[in-house]
Amino acid sequence: MSRPIIRKHEGFHWNGVDVLEYKQDGTAPFKDVTRQVLFDGTDMPCELRYFEVAPGGFTTLERHEHVHNVMVIRGSGRCIVGDEVHALATNDLVRVPPMTWHQFHAAADEPLGFLCMVPRERDRPQLPDAEDGAKLRKTLER
Amino acid sequence: MSRPIIRKHEGFHWNGVDVLEYKQDGTAPFKDVTRQVLFDGTDMPCELRYFEVAPGGFTTLERHEHVHNVMVIRGSGRCIVGDEVHALATNDLVRVPPMTWHQFHAAADEPLGFLCMVPRERDRPQLPDAEDGAKLRKTLER
Repeated sequence: MSRPIIRKHEGFHWNGVDVLEYKQDGTAPFKDVTRQVLFDGTDMPCELRYFEVAPGGFTTLERHEHVHNVMVIRGSGRCIVGDEVHALATNDLVRVPPMTWHQFHAAADEPLGFLCMVPRERDRPQLPDAEDGAKLRKTLER
Repeated sequence: MSRPIIRKHEGFHWNGVDVLEYKQDGTAPFKDVTRQVLFDGTDMPCELRYFEVAPGGFTTLERHEHVHNVMVIRGSGRCIVGDEVHALATNDLVRVPPMTWHQFHAAADEPLGFLCMVPRERDRPQLPDAEDGAKLRKTLER
């Protein structure tokens, strides 16, 4: 029988959980984001990760086939999902559908921390090309 | 393209998420527990549920082959996992291994609310028989 794991929490860090870079530097645009893998999916077909975006920071604008199931657990901010922008507060839920552009922004004065549940086996994110970028800017300015 | 879903939160209730009975009454021992399905696994091989145990309440003592990945998001309490008892505070993580007896108890003076990630396809919980119950009581009294 494998052992239970209890991970005590202090200030959005957990015993035995490494604070990782969000992505390798230079591979995609983002600002001030860390990543922690809370449950790594070795015994379940999904992973649960915790991302924290520092005040004024943002995740990469991207899309992929797999769904993101997100729950904010710290601070506030905004998310872009498809052609909509939504304000986010602690405990709000967001489902990002397949192949939908999305990006998370922390508020200027506090971090945005969120859980993200994803399938263990998943496709790699796609970045917008110049045309996608122009279309996105247009819909967001409407 | 399916629509994004944003569920705003107020007091540990979410827009469009029903507050359900934990289990059908009389099927297993428990006290003062509700269940909300935050992400139902229609587009992912796992579900994310929110359970809330009222002050002094507790979930069913049970075990099953599937793993529970748990995160406390409200209040405090204790959990029994195998032959150990652990104090729980907000944001603590618990992994319940396969076929391991477990039970969550809220503190006397505040609720215990926790997320639980499970595989969509999973086996049914088993309840302790008299012999299991006696063994468990013995290990917990040590």
